[in-house]
Amino acid sequence: MPRIAYLGPQGTFTEQAARELTADFAAELIAHDTVHSALEAVRAGEVEAAGVPMENSVEGAVPSTLDGLVAGDPVVAVAELVLPIRFDVLVRPGTDPSEVTSVASHPHALAQVRGWLSRELPRAQDVPTASTATAAVEVENGTADAAVVAPVAHRYHSRLTRLASDIADVDDAVTRFLLVRRPGHLPEPTGADRTSIAVVAHDEVGALGEVLSELSLRGINLSRIESRPTKDRLGAYRFFLDFDGHVADTRIGDALTGLHRRCSEVRFLGSFPKADSKPVSVRASDSEQAFRRSMRWLSEVRRGRTA
Amino acid sequence: MPRIAYLGPQGTFTEQAARELTADFAAELIAHDTVHSALEAVRAGEVEAAGVPMENSVEGAVPSTLDGLVAGDPVVAVAELVLPIRFDVLVRPGTDPSEVTSVASHPHALAQVRGWLSRELPRAQDVPTASTATAAVEVENGTADAAVVAPVAHRYHSRLTRLASDIADVDDAVTRFLLVRRPGHLPEPTGADRTSIAVVAHDEVGALGEVLSELSLRGINLSRIESRPTKDRLGAYRFFLDFDGHVADTRIGDALTGLHRRCSEVRFLGSFPKADSKPVSVRASDSEQAFRRSMRWLSEVRRGRTA
Repeated sequence: MPRIAYLGPQGTFTEQAARELTADFAAELIAHDTVHSALEAVRAGEVEAAGVPMENSVEGAVPSTLDGLVAGDPVVAVAELVLPIRFDVLVRPGTDPSEVTSVASHPHALAQVRGWLSRELPRAQDVPTASTATAAVEVENGTADAAVVAPVAHRYHSRLTRLASDIADVDDAVTRFLLVRRPGHLPEPTGADRTSIAVVAHDEVGALGEVLSELSLRGINLSRIESRPTKDRLGAYRFFLDFDGHVADTRIGDALTGLHRRCSEVRFLGSFPKADSKPVSVRASDSEQAFRRSMRWLSEVRRGRTA
Repeated sequence: MPRIAYLGPQGTFTEQAARELTADFAAELIAHDTVHSALEAVRAGEVEAAGVPMENSVEGAVPSTLDGLVAGDPVVAVAELVLPIRFDVLVRPGTDPSEVTSVASHPHALAQVRGWLSRELPRAQDVPTASTATAAVEVENGTADAAVVAPVAHRYHSRLTRLASDIADVDDAVTRFLLVRRPGHLPEPTGADRTSIAVVAHDEVGALGEVLSELSLRGINLSRIESRPTKDRLGAYRFFLDFDGHVADTRIGDALTGLHRRCSEVRFLGSFPKADSKPVSVRASDSEQAFRRSMRWLSEVRRGRTA
């Protein structure tokens, strides 16, 4: 049974994501303390893959994942998952909501249900914890009255009962997760794929603009750009780019070779089916057929057969 | 002996250019009345090649050549020549300069020696002719006293004498000529080559900008751009582009396939050694080696061997 690492502890959204990302096959999930540790386990071959959080629609990118993907041997994403972030509130059986004076959770989770808490548990004081799962332990131990947790937490804390479920101040808050492996067999193109890369542009005027032109000139839709310091020196950045298409597509390969020539570093971070399954639209001038025709034309021109 | 067409009549700069363009081999030069006729003779296989004027440093592009290159079957340039445009003045033997009251030539030629004429032949009235060579005939016939001609004219009008030679108001006036053939064997790359193409961009916002970006992104130095109406409808243009490099160069081929996909029409008009023989500078990121490395990297990424 393949072993899959994830950011623990048990009973958090990252476990839930790892379960859904591996729903197609029986997997043994291994909790790690940090994203870095989970990715190192992949690189070392201790696990088959790792489920890691990439970005949250409210909180933004997850810097430790961005940095971890490019630090060390190559790893590539083979699947993505967009998980709605909606919480359950667990209490000890028989707890009267009006008597709840403390509510435990990770500060980000508390922030995302602030409105609900002030309406439904107005007397409750925050008890910040290292993870949503730890909050459930606090309630079991009696050091807090209520815990804001991921739905999966109940699996490990079944003595507690749900005071509320499916709550979130922002209705469509989501977190995007990736399943990351060592390079090997790439997912087949589906026509609705995303490619992720990280590049360090040369330190020249207009270099980033040229990087983006390599994509736009081939009609490649850039869906996301994040920058992170390279840590070499102030003002040097690594750009994480997500765009529509699969590395097997000619226009994507063409753009990637352009970036490889132009950048001091290019990391391929994976091509995988988009979570939303929306087909990628390709301009006629960037279609496989247009590339084939243009290559054929060039070949004839070079042989002096046409002009 | 190969037959070479040129824009006649005999004794003009175009004949002189045709002679220099074919200096490496014995050729029979055939005068044609128009550039169109000379190019049609190439297309029909009646002649091996044609010498045609492309642009003059004072007068600009030669529209009939631009239009002729793209009207009909493909033709490609295999050599270029930059000819200094300096004139001789022919008179009948024994003519006293102070008695010259009329001077014949093509209006463009008269315009290019206006200063010299007003200083040296202040009493002379213009007699416009269809070509510089015809002007010499007018002097022979006695219908004009002097003719402003190409140096080669004296070969056909040796009864006339040179009143002056090597004159020009603008010291470095030059005309660029091309030797044009049917597609076939292309000239070998020399490292100091020029490529000419004609493109019709799609009628979309930013289309011309994208055409130019295909070149600039690959570090290709555009040396010339001319537009001509496509004659289909007002506002539709064909662009004639000259840039450094040879179609056999990977970065040039890469740009050309991009243009072929993006444009409604692309004509290859030739790759040939530049008249100035100045080596083309290529950025490290656009070198043959950089292209090879990037293709190898992409191939490894696609096979899942690296990332």
